[in-house]
This record gives sequence, structure tokens and C-alpha cells, in this order.
Amino acid sequence: RYGLAEAEDQVGSATGLAWTEVGGETLTIEVSVLPGSGKLTLTGKLGDVMKESAQAAFSYTRSRAEQLGIDGQFHEKNDVHIHIPEGAVPKDGPSAGITLATALISALTGRAISKDIAMTGEITLRGRVLPIGGLKEKSLAAHRAGYKKVLLPADNERDLRDIPDSVKEAIQFVPVSHMDQVLEHALLDEVMLPPAAEASEIRIETH
Amino acid sequence: RYGLAEAEDQVGSATGLAWTEVGGETLTIEVSVLPGSGKLTLTGKLGDVMKESAQAAFSYTRSRAEQLGIDGQFHEKNDVHIHIPEGAVPKDGPSAGITLATALISALTGRAISKDIAMTGEITLRGRVLPIGGLKEKSLAAHRAGYKKVLLPADNERDLRDIPDSVKEAIQFVPVSHMDQVLEHALLDEVMLPPAAEASEIRIETH
Amino acid sequence: RYGLAEAEDQVGSATGLAWTEVGGETLTIEVSVLPGSGKLTLTGKLGDVMKESAQAAFSYTRSRAEQLGIDGQFHEKNDVHIHIPEGAVPKDGPSAGITLATALISALTGRAISKDIAMTGEITLRGRVLPIGGLKEKSLAAHRAGYKKVLLPADNERDLRDIPDSVKEAIQFVPVSHMDQVLEHALLDEVMLPPAAEASEIRIETH
Amino acid sequence: RYGLAEAEDQVGSATGLAWTEVGGETLTIEVSVLPGSGKLTLTGKLGDVMKESAQAAFSYTRSRAEQLGIDGQFHEKNDVHIHIPEGAVPKDGPSAGITLATALISALTGRAISKDIAMTGEITLRGRVLPIGGLKEKSLAAHRAGYKKVLLPADNERDLRDIPDSVKEAIQFVPVSHMDQVLEHALLDEVMLPPAAEASEIRIETH
Amino acid sequence: RYGLAEAEDQVGSATGLAWTEVGGETLTIEVSVLPGSGKLTLTGKLGDVMKESAQAAFSYTRSRAEQLGIDGQFHEKNDVHIHIPEGAVPKDGPSAGITLATALISALTGRAISKDIAMTGEITLRGRVLPIGGLKEKSLAAHRAGYKKVLLPADNERDLRDIPDSVKEAIQFVPVSHMDQVLEHALLDEVMLPPAAEASEIRIETH
Amino acid sequence: RYGLAEAEDQVGSATGLAWTEVGGETLTIEVSVLPGSGKLTLTGKLGDVMKESAQAAFSYTRSRAEQLGIDGQFHEKNDVHIHIPEGAVPKDGPSAGITLATALISALTGRAISKDIAMTGEITLRGRVLPIGGLKEKSLAAHRAGYKKVLLPADNERDLRDIPDSVKEAIQFVPVSHMDQVLEHALLDEVMLPPAAEASEIRIETH
Ligand SMILES: [Ca+2]
Ligand SMILES: [Ca+2]
Ligand SMILES: [Ca+2]
Ligand SMILES: [Ca+2]
Ligand SMILES: [Ca+2]
Ligand SMILES: [Ca+2]
Ligand SMILES: [Ca+2]
Ligand SMILES: [Ca+2]
Ligand SMILES: [Ca+2]
Ligand SMILES: [Ca+2]
Ligand SMILES: [Ca+2]
Ligand SMILES: [Ca+2]
Repeated sequence: RYGLAEAEDQVGSATGLAWTEVGGETLTIEVSVLPGSGKLTLTGKLGDVMKESAQAAFSYTRSRAEQLGIDGQFHEKNDVHIHIPEGAVPKDGPSAGITLATALISALTGRAISKDIAMTGEITLRGRVLPIGGLKEKSLAAHRAGYKKVLLPADNERDLRDIPDSVKEAIQFVPVSHMDQVLEHALLDEVMLPPAAEASEIRIETH
Repeated sequence: RYGLAEAEDQVGSATGLAWTEVGGETLTIEVSVLPGSGKLTLTGKLGDVMKESAQAAFSYTRSRAEQLGIDGQFHEKNDVHIHIPEGAVPKDGPSAGITLATALISALTGRAISKDIAMTGEITLRGRVLPIGGLKEKSLAAHRAGYKKVLLPADNERDLRDIPDSVKEAIQFVPVSHMDQVLEHALLDEVMLPPAAEASEIRIETH
Repeated sequence: RYGLAEAEDQVGSATGLAWTEVGGETLTIEVSVLPGSGKLTLTGKLGDVMKESAQAAFSYTRSRAEQLGIDGQFHEKNDVHIHIPEGAVPKDGPSAGITLATALISALTGRAISKDIAMTGEITLRGRVLPIGGLKEKSLAAHRAGYKKVLLPADNERDLRDIPDSVKEAIQFVPVSHMDQVLEHALLDEVMLPPAAEASEIRIETH
Repeated sequence: RYGLAEAEDQVGSATGLAWTEVGGETLTIEVSVLPGSGKLTLTGKLGDVMKESAQAAFSYTRSRAEQLGIDGQFHEKNDVHIHIPEGAVPKDGPSAGITLATALISALTGRAISKDIAMTGEITLRGRVLPIGGLKEKSLAAHRAGYKKVLLPADNERDLRDIPDSVKEAIQFVPVSHMDQVLEHALLDEVMLPPAAEASEIRIETH
Repeated sequence: RYGLAEAEDQVGSATGLAWTEVGGETLTIEVSVLPGSGKLTLTGKLGDVMKESAQAAFSYTRSRAEQLGIDGQFHEKNDVHIHIPEGAVPKDGPSAGITLATALISALTGRAISKDIAMTGEITLRGRVLPIGGLKEKSLAAHRAGYKKVLLPADNERDLRDIPDSVKEAIQFVPVSHMDQVLEHALLDEVMLPPAAEASEIRIETH
Repeated sequence: RYGLAEAEDQVGSATGLAWTEVGGETLTIEVSVLPGSGKLTLTGKLGDVMKESAQAAFSYTRSRAEQLGIDGQFHEKNDVHIHIPEGAVPKDGPSAGITLATALISALTGRAISKDIAMTGEITLRGRVLPIGGLKEKSLAAHRAGYKKVLLPADNERDLRDIPDSVKEAIQFVPVSHMDQVLEHALLDEVMLPPAAEASEIRIETH
């Protein structure tokens, strides 16, 4: 069923964790990078704070393009669409920041995201990971959906004492303070799809 | 009368199913692909969620252009107008996603849509079909309007138990989990109209 | 007085029929096609549904340009202004759709619209004519203003039983289901003004 | 004092008449045509109906450019600013339509507007003059401000019976049904300033 | 302290006078003209009427460019930023019109504004100075802040009878009816900074 | 933990001080300058006054580009993203003006900002530093977070008497009246990263 951990590693699709009034939820973030002219589209009933979080993730990715092996002009040669399914459900807050950045970088590099991993944390322009709320509910949701590893902000490490032991036995909790650590855990090393930059270069050659 | 199943297979016109407070409704989705410069117009009193659903259908189509035999630059060479008639009636929600994508792909490929088919399901950027609500009312509406086949999300399969037998005898219900299956059922194989890409190439040559 | 049937056939000016709380009204729709760069202007205190109706009429006209003898790039070479006078009176609803399309096509082809004709009907992207409300009040208004022929949606034909005999004797009611029929009745055959496409070509030559 | 009839004929400045809850008012409409790139600016706390009225006046002028001796591309080579002073006072309604068109055409042709004339009337795209309200209060305001001629819509002619004799003796009331008549009365024949089109040609030459 | 008369003549910074519920206030208006591409930025929590007033001042300046010795294309070659400090305080109304124009013309010509002068008055497109309210409170504020000369609209001359004698002895009140007079009083004759037009020409040469 | 003084000097990241109903707060302002085409993005749930403050800081920086050793066209060759983390917390007011300018100039010059310094003050277009509110609460927050030097507006110097002695012993308070003084204190002299202008020139060369 939709919302459970995927059966296979995916490119351009990462799993975040959301807090709602009726408990935690998993949140799939999909990114499509399409040959285009620099348009950024955000859909899925996102609130303003989440849209700004996506912009921060986008600028972080641009500022790190060279280190990540991404074409520095990817934002001009492509249109990027970030969508969070279950389009009737409103979503907001900054805690999907690192998930947005991970899905975007996966789509741009063609490297898949581990199917066993979920994550939560605000991102800053410099890639810092800031603390979030609702870790307990989010962890229970990750557990229910079958995830085996959860990345959380280092500043939330003390909140782990509230997580039930059964969940802590099933899930490996990894505190992170920078996007470098997030990508080290989340992205697989091999390239599964041609990265966006190369695809768009091919497009230009055949024009 | 308007709202009944068409007498002939149509290019660029697909039938969705909507839930309203007074019962189910059929929903005709019309797509015109016109030589132009990349404008996307959405009309028919669509709410924000349905507009985002159309954007997701649009990006899905762009990401699958090559496999579908569509010019990868169709979105730059054409203006696309998506209209849902009965313009005074407000429409919203994500459940027209697969219908929007089907009508668009039909208009772009010139392949007609089977006149006997109606459908309902949210679409994601990757073409996944997500569950919807109101299947019972939607099915009754499809039956009243004379449709013989209804595509529904695989995650809604269990809701079929609520459908009256008389409807289940008249309509073939087909659970789908990906747009590939939707198109396999909905699109006829022969090309009835010149696809948009070829039409616009002709335009350029005669300029 | 303004609002009565014109003394002469007009290019780019068609008469619709509106329903209001205090009875029916005639509605003059004026279209100016000016050499320009593709701007569409809608004025006259139009509500969102009527604006979308104008967009549908516009896209329908583009999709039929070749058959109508209109330059297929008219929307890029011209600015189009659609205005409904009596600018302080709010107007809304989809029932002016076929009138909007007729006035636009008249302005683009230079063919006049018969001075004796009024019309009402929603238009779809494919040129279908959908049913409207308030036929009785609209018919009385057309009668008062001196029109001799009224085009109405075929799906409203049964509503003719509510029209007083005196009106039915003075006005010829013509049910239509497609814009082709509307134009056959409304547009005169001879070209009174140079069509927009030719005018703009002249402009380019003299530059 | 501001608001009284000017001591000299002006180019690009016409006098309209407004109705307010506390009586009639004169309304100065100023137009500047500046070498530019096609921007239309409307200021003076104008409501939406008055802004649309200005757009109608603008399109009317474009459609009549050749007959008026105006460069047909004036709207692309210039920026046009229409301002109604006393910027803190809200203004709305369609009845300044013919005044807006007169001020614009004066600025574009360089022909002055007679200092003795005030006017009121809605304009349509085709230059028709439609009836307005509050003629009595407007006439009193024109009288107080010292105007000697008032142009009014022909459809308002019967409202002249409500105007006091003292006003009718001081002011010549001229019913008009088309902009051609308005311009015949309001515009002086000699060109006082170089018209906009020539000015912008000079600009291009000296570049 | 901020808000007092400056110790030196300034280029691109003029002093207006505002009326508030708790008395008069001086208002510094800063203008930066930067090599750019024609963007006009207005900041300082300005209400709509004050923004329109700034647009009128801008168009007036464009229409008088030649007489003022300003490059006629300054609005295309530069970005202009108009800011009114104390950014948390809302400001509105048309009475800063002549101050906005003076600060802009100073920045464009490089001529300083006399440090001893404050002013108040609405501006029209043709440079007329229209009357304002609150002259008494504004005069007291100018006095408190140390200004020696105040420009006021000629139509407000009679309001001078309400000003205390002590203020009238300290401040020279100068009624003005046109921007020409405002500039004659406010702008010093020598050029202190290179005017914007020359600066941007230099930029183009060194490109 | 996030919000404490950094362990190392940073380029493009400055610390402001905010007043809230529950006390003072430190505010990290991050700036990314990315090769681009002139887009300015502001995120972090900023209110309108703070956004205008960022625009004033931006224009100030442009007007001082030459003196600061910044490419005068930096705003056209780059996209600039200004973000204030803790994206769910609303931020407003003009008092971050000098911090915004400092972070921007640091990012553009590649010169780091001293890790020991926090600051507060409104900025004007000419670089003046205007007074702010809440100095006591802001100072306590700076103290708690470990800062050793606080820049404050000269017009707030008298408010220092309200600061507890313990804070005054730990923190050096520096009154400033112009951005020149702010930069003299805040920016380190050596260039740590290649400045934006050079980076974008390299980009152009390798194209
Ligand atoms: Ca869910
Ligand atoms: Ca790894
Ligand atoms: Ca229906
Ligand atoms: Ca098939
Ligand atoms: Ca009427
Ligand atoms: Ca015919
Ligand atoms: Ca007045
Ligand atoms: Ca004459
Ligand atoms: Ca003040
Ligand atoms: Ca002088
Ligand atoms: Ca904090
Ligand atoms: Ca230093």
C-alpha cells in the first residue's frame, strides 16, 4: 500500500516524516528534473514555510553543485518539479528540509536513495541540520511503515529517550548535523540513472 | 445529452468521475494542444488541488515523453489548454489526476481514448496511482452515463464490495497501480490525428 | 437606445443574453483585434467563470483557425481586447461562451454578424454547445430588444415550451449543438473588413 | 484654485465630471506619453471599473490610430501614464471613458483640448457613448468651475429637463453618441506640441 | 539625532513633512540611482497612494528630462530605489509628491538639496503643486527639526494664518504652484556628484 | 547547539539580535551568492518590513560596490539568496538591516565575519544606522549565546544604562552611525573564499 517503505531503491524519491494532530505520518517527496529553462514547481498543497524550505534546499544544492558532481547550471538547463503526493492533504513546516534536498540531489546525480531510510530535519543555506518537533510520533510512523534507519538532527538526540524500546530495537537512529552526513547515509554510491546534467547535454547535442 | 458516454472515440477528451454532496458525476476533461510558446492554461473553475494535480500530470507526461513517442520539447513548442466543461460548477481534489494525464497524452499522440471508459485516481510524478474516495457514488454515475469499463486505483480494490451487483455486471472494474496500465486500457493503438509534435514541426517548416 | 438590436450588421460585435434577478438582459460583446504581440484583455466587470469562458472561446478559435480561414498565428501577431459595455454592471457565468467565440471569429475574419440574431450557450474547447439556465427570461429580453432569431443549446430545446406564444411567433428559435452551426447562422458570408491576419501582414510589409 | 477651468488650452489634460455623495465634482485627467516600451500606468486611486474604462479608451485609440493621424505602434514605442490628481480621493465608475480617450488622443496628436469644455460618458471599444448617472449634480459642478460647454451622452438628453435654467443659460449642453463627435468638439485643430509618434521617431534617430 | 536637519547639503535626500495623529513629523526621502535595467523599487512601508505619488513624480521627471539636463533614457539604463527610512512606520498620502520628485531629480542630476529646506505638496503629472492638509502640525515639526525654509502649495497660503508667530519668525514659508519653483528653491546649482546618466555611460564604455 | 556563537569565523553568515515577547533572540542571517541572472530570494518567514530592509541593504551594497571591491554588476551575474533559519518562526522589523548588509557584503567579498560579533540597527539607502528598540533584551540574548562584541546604533547609546553590569563586563558595546563602521568591526581583512565577482568571471571563461 502507498505510504509503506518501497520494495526497491528509488532515484528522486525520498521519505520524510511529518507530525499531525492524529500522530506521525510518512511523507514521500518526489522530484522530477526535466530538460527546460529554469522553472521550479512545488505542488502537493505545501504551506509557505515548506515552500521556503524547498527553496533553501534548492539553493544549498546549487551552492554545492561542484562537490556533488552536478552541472553548476542545472537550474538553468532544467525545470525542476517537487511534488508531495496525497495532494489533498495540507503540508507545512521546515522539517522536511533535508528530505527535500536529498530527493533533489538524488534526481540530479542519478544516485538512488536507500529504500530503508526515512529522515527529518530543517536545512539551512549552509547545509546545517536544525532541530525539529514531534520526534516520537514521527518515529512510530517510520516504524509502522517499515523503515530501518531514521536520520534525525543532532540537536534532537536527547529526545530519543522518549522513543519506546521496541522501536529503538527495530530502527537505527542516526543523529546528523550537516547535509554531508545525510547524503553519506541516504544516497547509494552507484549511479542508476543518467544524471540530469548529462541528460541535458545529450539534448543539446541532438538539437 | 451532455455527460453521457460519447458515441465515438475522441482524441484529447477523457472521462473522470467526481464525488459531490448530491452523488457522483461524470467529468469530461478536454485538452487542446496548440502551436505556441509553452503556456499552460487551466479552466473550468478548478480548485488549487486539482490545478496542482494537472501540473503533476503535465510533468509526468514530460518525463515519459520519449517512451510515449511524444516530442520532448512539446511543452515549449505548444500552448496546452486543459478545460473541464460546465464552467460554473466548482471542481477540486486530486482524483482526476490519471484522467488529466490520459487526456493530455491522447492530445499529444493523436491516439483516441476508448469511448467506453471512465476512470478515477490520483497521479504522482512517477506515475503511481493513489487511492481516492467515493468509489461507490462514482461507479453509479459511470453506470448511469453508460460507461462499460472503469479504471480505479489498486488500493481501492476492497471498496468494490460496496458496489451493487447490477453495476458490477454492467461495468468491468479494472484496478491499476501505474499510469502505464491506465494508458494500456484507455488509449486506442491507431493514431487518429497527427500528434502535436509533428503538427508543430510542420508549422516551423512553413514559416 | 443602447441595448436594442443594431440598425446594421456589425463586425466584431455579437449579442448574448444574460439572466439577472430582475429579468433577462441583452449583452453586447465587442472584440477588437489590434496589431500587437499576443496580449488578451478582458474588460467589463467579468467574473472568473466568464473570463474562463472567454479563454475557452479563444482556444477553440485557435484550434479551428485553418478551417475558419484565420491566420494560425493570429494570437501572436495581434492583441485581442474583449469588452462587454455597461462597465459598472457585474457579469458572470459560462452562457456567453458561444457569443464570445462568434464575436472573436467575426473580428478575425472580417465577416459581419447578422444584426437580427442573439444567442446563448456554454462553449467547450471542442466547440460543443452546453445547456444554460433562464431561457424564458432571456427570450423575453431578446424580444423586447427586437431580435428576430435566437440560437439556443440543443439540450435546452424542451425549455421552449415555457416561452409565450407571442414571443415564439416573433422570434425564430434555433437549437444548436456545435459552434459550426452557430457560425453558419450568425456570420454573413461576405467579408466587410480586411481580416486581422491580412491587416497585420500589411503592417509588417510597411515597416 | 485647482479644480477650476484652466486659463489656457492644454495638451493631454481633459476635464471629466464625477458624481459623489456630497454633489458633483470636476475631475482632471492627465496623460503623459513618454518614449518607452509599451507600459500603461494608471494612478490616482482608480477603482477597477475606471481602470477597465481606461483600457477600453486605450484600445479604442489604437483601433482608430490611422484615422486620428497617430503612429499605429505608439503603444509599443511609448509608455503611457494616465493620472487623475487629488490622489487620496478614490474614483470609480465608467463615466470618465470619453474623457480618458480625449486626454489620451490629445497627448498623442499634440492637439490641445478646449479649456472651456467638460464631458461625461461611458466609452465602448467601438467608440459608442453610453449613458451615465448624476447628470444634474455633474452639471452644477461644471457650472461652479466655470466651464461653458458640457458633452453628455445622447441617451441622457432627456435628463436635461432636470437642470436649472440658470445653468442651461451659462452652459451649452451637447449630446453625443460617438467619440468622433466628442473629438470634433473637444480637440482644437492646430497642433501645439509635437505628437508622440514624431517625438519618438526623433529619439530613435538621435540614438 | 536622526530626523533633525542635516549638517550638510545632500544629493538624493530630501525632507518632507508628514501629518500623524500625534503631530507632525519630518520624513527623509532617499533615492539611489544605480546602473541597471529599469527597475523602480519603493520601500519604507508606503501605502498605495504614496506609491502612486512616487510614480507620478517619476513620470513627471521623465517628461522633463531634457529641460533638467537628465538623460532621457535614465529609466531604462538605471534601477531607481526610493526609500523612506524608519521602515516600521507606515506612511501614506499624496503630500510627499514634490519631495519625492526633488529627491529623484537631485539624484539624477548630482545637484545637492539645500540642507535647510523642507517641503510638502501633492504633485501632478504636469508638475502642478496641489494643496495638502495639516500645515500647522507639519510646520511645527519642521521648526523642531531645525529647518529654515518650508515650501508649501500656493493653495495652502491662507492656512499660514494658523501658524504661531514664533515659527513664522524662524522659518521662511514659500508658496509654490509648480515643480519649477520647488527645484529653483531646493536644488543647489553646482553639481556635487556625477549625474546618473554620465555614470551609466561610463559603465557602458568600460564594459 | 544552534543559536550559540559559532566556533569559527564564517563567510556570508552574520548574527543579528531580535526582540520577542518572551525575550531577546539571536538571529543567524545566511547569504548565498550563486552564479545566476539577478534573482533575489528572501526566505525564513520574513515580514514585509524585514523584506524591505533586505532590499535597502541590497541597494546600499550596490551603491557602494566600487569602494567595497565588489563587481558592480554582481546583481546581474548572480542570484542572491538571503535566508534566516528556524523557518517556522515569523521575523519582522527593520532592525536586522545592518546585519543583512554585513552578511551580503561578506558573501560578495569572501571576507569572513568575526565569530564574536553580534549587531542590531536599521540601515538606510545611504548607510546610516538608525535606532532600534529592545536593546536590553537583545543584549541579554547576545550574552547568553556567548558573543563578545555588540554593535548598536549611536542613537541608542543612552539605552546602555539599562544593561546589567555583568553583561557590560562580558560584552564590548560599540555605537555605530554608519555602515562603514559596522564593516570595519565585523569583517575580517583577509579573503577566505573567492569573492562572488571572481567566481562568476571564472564561470564565464570556462563556458
Ligand atoms: Ca499517508
Ligand atoms: Ca555512501
Ligand atoms: Ca454533469
Ligand atoms: Ca492498447
Ligand atoms: Ca442593458
Ligand atoms: Ca452562412
Ligand atoms: Ca476636487
Ligand atoms: Ca474641430
Ligand atoms: Ca521621525
Ligand atoms: Ca537655484
Ligand atoms: Ca533561536
Ligand atoms: Ca578591519
